[in-house]
Amino acid sequence: MTRIDGRTNDQLRPITIERGWSDQAEGSALISFGRTKVLCTASFTNGVPRWMTGKGKGWVTAEYSMLPRSTNDRMDREAVKGKIGGRTHEISRLIGRSLRAVVDMKALGENTIVLDCDVLQADGGTRTAAITGAYVALADALEWGRSKNFIGKNSTPLIDSVSAVSVGIIDGTPMLDLAYTEDVRAETDMNVVVTGRGLFVEVQGTAEGAPFDRRELDSLLDLALGGAVDLSRIQKDALNQA
Amino acid sequence: MTRIDGRTNDQLRPITIERGWSDQAEGSALISFGRTKVLCTASFTNGVPRWMTGKGKGWVTAEYSMLPRSTNDRMDREAVKGKIGGRTHEISRLIGRSLRAVVDMKALGENTIVLDCDVLQADGGTRTAAITGAYVALADALEWGRSKNFIGKNSTPLIDSVSAVSVGIIDGTPMLDLAYTEDVRAETDMNVVVTGRGLFVEVQGTAEGAPFDRRELDSLLDLALGGAVDLSRIQKDALNQA
Amino acid sequence: MTRIDGRTNDQLRPITIERGWSDQAEGSALISFGRTKVLCTASFTNGVPRWMTGKGKGWVTAEYSMLPRSTNDRMDREAVKGKIGGRTHEISRLIGRSLRAVVDMKALGENTIVLDCDVLQADGGTRTAAITGAYVALADALEWGRSKNFIGKNSTPLIDSVSAVSVGIIDGTPMLDLAYTEDVRAETDMNVVVTGRGLFVEVQGTAEGAPFDRRELDSLLDLALGGAVDLSRIQKDALNQA
Amino acid sequence: MTRIDGRTNDQLRPITIERGWSDQAEGSALISFGRTKVLCTASFTNGVPRWMTGKGKGWVTAEYSMLPRSTNDRMDREAVKGKIGGRTHEISRLIGRSLRAVVDMKALGENTIVLDCDVLQADGGTRTAAITGAYVALADALEWGRSKNFIGKNSTPLIDSVSAVSVGIIDGTPMLDLAYTEDVRAETDMNVVVTGRGLFVEVQGTAEGAPFDRRELDSLLDLALGGAVDLSRIQKDALNQA
Amino acid sequence: MTRIDGRTNDQLRPITIERGWSDQAEGSALISFGRTKVLCTASFTNGVPRWMTGKGKGWVTAEYSMLPRSTNDRMDREAVKGKIGGRTHEISRLIGRSLRAVVDMKALGENTIVLDCDVLQADGGTRTAAITGAYVALADALEWGRSKNFIGKNSTPLIDSVSAVSVGIIDGTPMLDLAYTEDVRAETDMNVVVTGRGLFVEVQGTAEGAPFDRRELDSLLDLALGGAVDLSRIQKDALNQA
Amino acid sequence: MTRIDGRTNDQLRPITIERGWSDQAEGSALISFGRTKVLCTASFTNGVPRWMTGKGKGWVTAEYSMLPRSTNDRMDREAVKGKIGGRTHEISRLIGRSLRAVVDMKALGENTIVLDCDVLQADGGTRTAAITGAYVALADALEWGRSKNFIGKNSTPLIDSVSAVSVGIIDGTPMLDLAYTEDVRAETDMNVVVTGRGLFVEVQGTAEGAPFDRRELDSLLDLALGGAVDLSRIQKDALNQA
Repeated sequence: MTRIDGRTNDQLRPITIERGWSDQAEGSALISFGRTKVLCTASFTNGVPRWMTGKGKGWVTAEYSMLPRSTNDRMDREAVKGKIGGRTHEISRLIGRSLRAVVDMKALGENTIVLDCDVLQADGGTRTAAITGAYVALADALEWGRSKNFIGKNSTPLIDSVSAVSVGIIDGTPMLDLAYTEDVRAETDMNVVVTGRGLFVEVQGTAEGAPFDRRELDSLLDLALGGAVDLSRIQKDALNQA
Repeated sequence: MTRIDGRTNDQLRPITIERGWSDQAEGSALISFGRTKVLCTASFTNGVPRWMTGKGKGWVTAEYSMLPRSTNDRMDREAVKGKIGGRTHEISRLIGRSLRAVVDMKALGENTIVLDCDVLQADGGTRTAAITGAYVALADALEWGRSKNFIGKNSTPLIDSVSAVSVGIIDGTPMLDLAYTEDVRAETDMNVVVTGRGLFVEVQGTAEGAPFDRRELDSLLDLALGGAVDLSRIQKDALNQA
Repeated sequence: MTRIDGRTNDQLRPITIERGWSDQAEGSALISFGRTKVLCTASFTNGVPRWMTGKGKGWVTAEYSMLPRSTNDRMDREAVKGKIGGRTHEISRLIGRSLRAVVDMKALGENTIVLDCDVLQADGGTRTAAITGAYVALADALEWGRSKNFIGKNSTPLIDSVSAVSVGIIDGTPMLDLAYTEDVRAETDMNVVVTGRGLFVEVQGTAEGAPFDRRELDSLLDLALGGAVDLSRIQKDALNQA
Repeated sequence: MTRIDGRTNDQLRPITIERGWSDQAEGSALISFGRTKVLCTASFTNGVPRWMTGKGKGWVTAEYSMLPRSTNDRMDREAVKGKIGGRTHEISRLIGRSLRAVVDMKALGENTIVLDCDVLQADGGTRTAAITGAYVALADALEWGRSKNFIGKNSTPLIDSVSAVSVGIIDGTPMLDLAYTEDVRAETDMNVVVTGRGLFVEVQGTAEGAPFDRRELDSLLDLALGGAVDLSRIQKDALNQA
Repeated sequence: MTRIDGRTNDQLRPITIERGWSDQAEGSALISFGRTKVLCTASFTNGVPRWMTGKGKGWVTAEYSMLPRSTNDRMDREAVKGKIGGRTHEISRLIGRSLRAVVDMKALGENTIVLDCDVLQADGGTRTAAITGAYVALADALEWGRSKNFIGKNSTPLIDSVSAVSVGIIDGTPMLDLAYTEDVRAETDMNVVVTGRGLFVEVQGTAEGAPFDRRELDSLLDLALGGAVDLSRIQKDALNQA
Repeated sequence: MTRIDGRTNDQLRPITIERGWSDQAEGSALISFGRTKVLCTASFTNGVPRWMTGKGKGWVTAEYSMLPRSTNDRMDREAVKGKIGGRTHEISRLIGRSLRAVVDMKALGENTIVLDCDVLQADGGTRTAAITGAYVALADALEWGRSKNFIGKNSTPLIDSVSAVSVGIIDGTPMLDLAYTEDVRAETDMNVVVTGRGLFVEVQGTAEGAPFDRRELDSLLDLALGGAVDLSRIQKDALNQA
């Protein structure tokens, strides 16, 4: 069986990261997973929300959103509807938890980083692209904080890297990094967040069609760990460029 | 290591199901996982939302909420705040997906079932109790629909049973069905939704503290599958009572 | 004329009070007026809202809500609609005023009590059951506050007891404590809040059908005062149990 | 004891009604109870909301609001806060019920009347002024509907007139039609809605300070019935002018 | 070509200003532009919002709203809809900017003035009437602030007067101060805010039909400047009355 | 006097238009006015909103929004705040009116075009960039509609082109196309929307500092008309590329 874009089952789509896309943010990355494009910015603020002050710890949070015409059919804006939908909430929380997993809040000190992940174009895997790009933006924002002496010289808030990828079973075959047309056909859909050292931060598997067994789960986890190795390398390359 | 309430690591808390608690709903269950108490009602309506009519398929959806003083500290009501929080959205969606996984929508026909899961008292595992109790309410509501001839005689909309349980790693030890005080100490927290046949519907694992490796993940899945066998039997017993 | 459940016109439905139903709240009562069931919790907080500090006075407030399937037809949740309806507002305010009428705010000191009255099942008279049950929860929360020394030894914040009952005229006959099917048929509907000493706190009479005259009003007030004597005794019994 | 403005205890403030104040509405009245000024408009629409069509019955509803600087201290607009408060809801519902009590919905036919009562200046008794003025606006809107043949020639939708007045006990003395400075001092506060024939539509008594006994209640009802006779006559005079 | 009400093309409608209409507000004016009636109140508060304190400067802001039946067809209340519409926002901001243009914030000192402009009846030109009337209310509120010593004796916060008028092109003819029926027919519609000295504060021209050329723009500006002279004089007369 | 970026007073910033940026939308353009970047998409739908059907006319509307970190300081999302601010409303309405001015709604037929203008990076002039870019997206969406036969062969819905530019007076000098740092210093700020034929669609001038006189207004209009000629040519070039 061949995939719609000719990839092998364990192959990522072309991944590109335009680091420093924004002139305004302390860290930023425009990341593409194939046709999926997410603009990730990291806003660094010295200080923490009032309820956290005096504990010597920092805070990292995230907000995810899709432009109304990032999708094939235009969606109404959540600002116009006056409330944020369940899916948006869910993904914002996932991104926040994923990035917090690789930050030492004590080492960050009383500083706040807000990660904004805005989907400019959607073709499946927007949450995994968002996490992967947000890591690059976060790393640069932390460097900025260090350069401004908001983070101490001997502090290393970043304890690992983190990326995410989707995996799914289509017509009985496990596949890596699903494009939208694959995603809608998948019986099982899983998003896996993995650190640079190969440890799990989040495993979220859902039977969209038939429930899945232990063997299928194992094969999906294998695929995801393989994809995470590639993503980790691409992140490192982006951060190594001047 | 002994657990706070003397359980073994692979032991559920005492589970009770008061089936038919409500005089009003077509199906209902007041379920307890230890001190956690969730009132689950299933509301059966003949017909489906306008956008679904004419497709010969039914719809199952769920809403989860906590009473303001179900918890140790009183929480503000979401109705008073004027919006539903991310966690509530996330759990409502999880319950809905979990129950839909065991319903054949064609066999249900153009009927709608709304599952309301209201937490009267919370001590950890409210979402897993909600799913487990909602299944019992759903089963009774489907029987009601059949008795009223809204569901055909030869239709069997219920294709399996479903239950859910939490598992987590505390001080390096995997444990089943965490109470609240255990939950806050867990490094890794996983909610697993399993059918009566032992297949996965949802696997949601989160590293609250340190990321987890493949071996830890495996041991948690083992525990969860074991707990699901017990829950499935308790559901069956409740439904077999007159 | 016989009533639907065989009661006499001046007879209450069976009233039960499960005092201390909640493990979490400082005071609680699950009260039943026949099939109407309301879970009342009292949350005691040391301190008052900022705008009240420094006046040496406490605050008592209440919130009322109905579970979506407490009624025969499922109602949408107010949290989902994003706003609280007029009826809910009206009843929450009534409960708050009624309970404040028997509390000496100076004796309470700078402490706050929030009464949550959540209707688990509705069959008429939910607001009167809520007031009657909230009094029991309030009394226990005040005792808790005293036991924690948030209320001084010589302070007696509770200056009287309070209960409420509905009365109405059906087919020209005044009746006490209307069930739902009676309520919808009533030409005149009145909720009366009375202290243990037999004084009025609130009198809210509404002509649902034809306007009523002075004589009818008098007969309704007579019935209500009689019912209040019974309710007051039942509250006392509940509070006298260990 | 003399009242602040020299009135006797059973005397209304000066009442004026500018009937037909609005060029736009089908019926309107700018009513003053002393310094309290409420603009009441009645909007007549042929047809009823979708859920009421085909029943041959009409609908009357009301909305109450205060201008932000109708009061001594400026209040925030409810539109700016994004939600309507409990007091506003409560009064809107009271006005609607009061006016519906004197309309025969069958005789009205499938027509809708919306009563808007906007408080331009507030000095106590805004809800009673609103009901009293809304009746005049309603009567004119019904005449308009008849003149346009939306109401049949032989139909008499208006079955009685209706007015409202506040009464209260101040320093032990019952008084009629409280101004704001009296209202805040009242131990007991009651709003009474009475038809032209002298029957009660609503009786809403609240112990703001100490609970009240049966004798006090009786004296307040006497005062209110007396005031209603005067208000009814003033309404009749306004409607008799060309 | 004659206008609907017999005016010449450069003639204002009858303008009346009832200064001090409100007993409550520090400054107020009920202004009429023909049948358009707007109640303008100015609320003076000593102090400024927290984010402005300590800068020695004051703040002036405005809110505009229409009563639901100020118009020919009843509009839903924005408070009921739970949000403020774009047009309301736009006009509130315009009024605020226009009045701030004639206030020296340093001379005002740390005081806040809120201008509320509520349209009681609408017949075109509500925003221009609002600005013109709000100026009178503002002037009186500033005098009040001076009389209470919130504004220093040697301070002159009011540096000019300000008024506004609409102009438009109807069937090719430029006209001043459009009534509603003229406004809907206008190809081009312009609102012009002018100081007493004849300088522009705001120029907002919109092609409702065909785009307009430079010559048409010039003729509209001429008309507006002429109308502003008249309005300025009427404001002065109102403020000169005792 | 030299401008911050070395431009002459009548010179635009570098303008670039990436036409067809989006794979999803029927028309799109990523437009830059210097560092200001706005993604404009045009969504074409066959059919019109219910209230417009049967009139043989189309509809064009627009929504504007800024990404939270498009600006130097991060702004809260309007979706999170649950309401759209006045400035956003105002600009969305301006964009919609501007584009409708060059569309013949009869020729468009019963089709709807929604223009989404999302500011990815802001450095002054976001609304003028949005209008200028939205025109390119609109033109392509109309071509798409023609290619799908939703627009008839002999229909020419586009009757002119349209662009917008800001002008302002800084230290007494009129300047074209203000960058953010210029904008905050401007005494007078004007946004001018002009068609390809040189006619005005909108003129919105505001005295941010001192009011302005007729001569200043004239010089600003001259500058704007000059800038519009350049923008019109750049739009034409973009649309002429294959």
